[in-house]
Amino acid sequence: MVKDAEYSFEQLFEDFSKIGLERDGGITRLAYTREEEQAKLLLKKLSEDLGFTARKDNAGNLWIRKEGLDPDLPAVLVGSHLDTVPQGGAYDGAVGVLAGFECMRQLDREGFPNRHSIELVVFAGEESSRFNIATAGSKILVGKLDVEALKAAKDNKGISVYRALKQLGYDPDDLPGFAAEDYKAFLELHVEQNVILEREKLQIGIVERIAAPTRARIELHGVEAHSGACPMGERHDALAAAAEIILAVEKAGYKEKDHHTVATVGRCTVRPGVMNVVPGYTELLVDVRGVEKESILRAYEEIRSSASSIAEKRGIGLIFEHLSSENPVELDPEIINIIESICKEKEVPYKRMNSGAGHDCMNLAPLVPTGLIFVPSKGGISHNKNEFTDFGDIHAGIEVLKEAVKVLSA
Amino acid sequence: MVKDAEYSFEQLFEDFSKIGLERDGGITRLAYTREEEQAKLLLKKLSEDLGFTARKDNAGNLWIRKEGLDPDLPAVLVGSHLDTVPQGGAYDGAVGVLAGFECMRQLDREGFPNRHSIELVVFAGEESSRFNIATAGSKILVGKLDVEALKAAKDNKGISVYRALKQLGYDPDDLPGFAAEDYKAFLELHVEQNVILEREKLQIGIVERIAAPTRARIELHGVEAHSGACPMGERHDALAAAAEIILAVEKAGYKEKDHHTVATVGRCTVRPGVMNVVPGYTELLVDVRGVEKESILRAYEEIRSSASSIAEKRGIGLIFEHLSSENPVELDPEIINIIESICKEKEVPYKRMNSGAGHDCMNLAPLVPTGLIFVPSKGGISHNKNEFTDFGDIHAGIEVLKEAVKVLSA
Repeated sequence: MVKDAEYSFEQLFEDFSKIGLERDGGITRLAYTREEEQAKLLLKKLSEDLGFTARKDNAGNLWIRKEGLDPDLPAVLVGSHLDTVPQGGAYDGAVGVLAGFECMRQLDREGFPNRHSIELVVFAGEESSRFNIATAGSKILVGKLDVEALKAAKDNKGISVYRALKQLGYDPDDLPGFAAEDYKAFLELHVEQNVILEREKLQIGIVERIAAPTRARIELHGVEAHSGACPMGERHDALAAAAEIILAVEKAGYKEKDHHTVATVGRCTVRPGVMNVVPGYTELLVDVRGVEKESILRAYEEIRSSASSIAEKRGIGLIFEHLSSENPVELDPEIINIIESICKEKEVPYKRMNSGAGHDCMNLAPLVPTGLIFVPSKGGISHNKNEFTDFGDIHAGIEVLKEAVKVLSA
Repeated sequence: MVKDAEYSFEQLFEDFSKIGLERDGGITRLAYTREEEQAKLLLKKLSEDLGFTARKDNAGNLWIRKEGLDPDLPAVLVGSHLDTVPQGGAYDGAVGVLAGFECMRQLDREGFPNRHSIELVVFAGEESSRFNIATAGSKILVGKLDVEALKAAKDNKGISVYRALKQLGYDPDDLPGFAAEDYKAFLELHVEQNVILEREKLQIGIVERIAAPTRARIELHGVEAHSGACPMGERHDALAAAAEIILAVEKAGYKEKDHHTVATVGRCTVRPGVMNVVPGYTELLVDVRGVEKESILRAYEEIRSSASSIAEKRGIGLIFEHLSSENPVELDPEIINIIESICKEKEVPYKRMNSGAGHDCMNLAPLVPTGLIFVPSKGGISHNKNEFTDFGDIHAGIEVLKEAVKVLSA
């Protein structure tokens, strides 16, 4: 059916949107589940119908190849992911995969004589919802996750990534590697997950840098007390201290606003958490992200020092646990220039920008020249069944991606 | 054994402290459980050995009576409770019950010729931990809880007070009432659950007023967003708004400090509550308590208006649900004077004070002249296995209570 010109991109997109569809309209294709496999299986079938070769690796990634005239030249890689968050939308990940497939299909139909092979990769398990690991498939590929890590990472039913891979027929004891010399470039297309392109009426975002998170866990140890019997002046209220810290985190983010750094408290856990007890314990999870390491560190240090003085002032015990610190990723300047030239030539309204969210391409960027292309997200809505991108904008993305693939694979 | 002068109060207290004792030293005698029954059963046995009459009512309350010379005169009632919170201490409730028993035992031993009968009541289910209802036994007695309410109030296993009463052999379809005309006065002795007496090196607190709670539930509806992709200026962070409100609650309490009003946020629930999402939803439980209704209302209204302007400023939806509002209780001035005279005469260091926590005597105060006597709590520790009151202080309490009973029952 895919050879049929009547099988439009819109129909293709709709068919994938049915996989994992829930009654309320949300899509649930969690990492390393049958639903994610089903989506990859459909793409494999469609690709083989077109004469492309398809293979899976033991990280669950799917690779589709349109052979080049000179198969020894390094290939041009495109791709993204097909898994979703619980009750997610149809666009996050799938738009990039299907845009890549559409490019290959159009180039095939047009008889484009690519010297370099063109490959489409579907990275498995990009979303962290199930195993608390983001971009699992691409991380495994580049060696950032080993078999021990896959045994350790478990979902809320106690199933590890290792076991989930085995249940799906993969062999996690024989994980793949990435031979960078076999690839000339990697291009990912993704929805923006923010309001900037929509607000500025642009169709394409050319990403220069991807923000990286620095994370901390804060424990506040106050004194549980009777909410009626304990006078205001006698309290060591862990939640009131936490409230001051939450606002200090927000302020630290605002201070670095011009550097595009953001700071968030995403979780606040209170014990005992009942109406009539002054809270004795509160835990906060803090996430600071940015594209400039210096700015991230300034915000992080300000949060650490504010937390410390707030706790001291209130006579509250503080444990400030540094969890992780990643480096912002710079995308390839030449690839950026190629994409920009195409936008100008095709008169597609675009801007250079940064990505606050992480993507699979972060993991490949240090190894191969990498680019990231955004298309708008209506209202910036993301990780939600209501996420939406106009087909007009998706087609603009496909056009730009296709031209870039042509330039790189010619 | 109780007739034996060798069976000291200390030994008596220790014997009760074994009922419901856990391995870690905490005591768990929850409302309407076998453990609470066991404590009442021991007291019933000891009382009957002394020749006192004992009866239970269908609310689970135990009544012990030392008949007066003129049985037609209204009785002098003393009492408290024997149930505890989970992993609670040996003092909260039990000190008052056993002090009452000790008074009756001493008066009996001394051959005190009480014209009025003296009664000791052990109120069942004072702690709210199990059924979310505080002072259940005394509330049932005065008609504040009917059979329908007892069917509706359930523990976390789905067992209602009604069913628990039945399981213990009571008939909750035949609940008791309180014939106020049969009583001349009610005196409760209780641990302070606060640091004031200890800090001021006093042995007795004579309570003038008992604080009452006014409560609210606040829902904040912001917008869930990606913690990396959503810029600071675009956020509608429900937790950051909650943080401002938590501090506004604290401030409202401080402003009414001179009126002894306190304000607490005891619970803060955040959704989705994960590291990488700006919280879209937060719920707060607010408890305002005081002994002056005007002051409570000022604090409450300030909280309501602060919440409103904070939510509006941040573009966040607010639901402010008023949950309950109770009136502070005034204790009987004549009873207070009697207790004060005794303290002066016996040279027991005391002060008049208020109670932030609620007690069974709140329910009887509107019906019969009522007094509440506090003894110190070491470090103010309460609802905890580490709660402690020195036997010297308990004996001072017993002495004052006994003299008051003598004055009232003579």
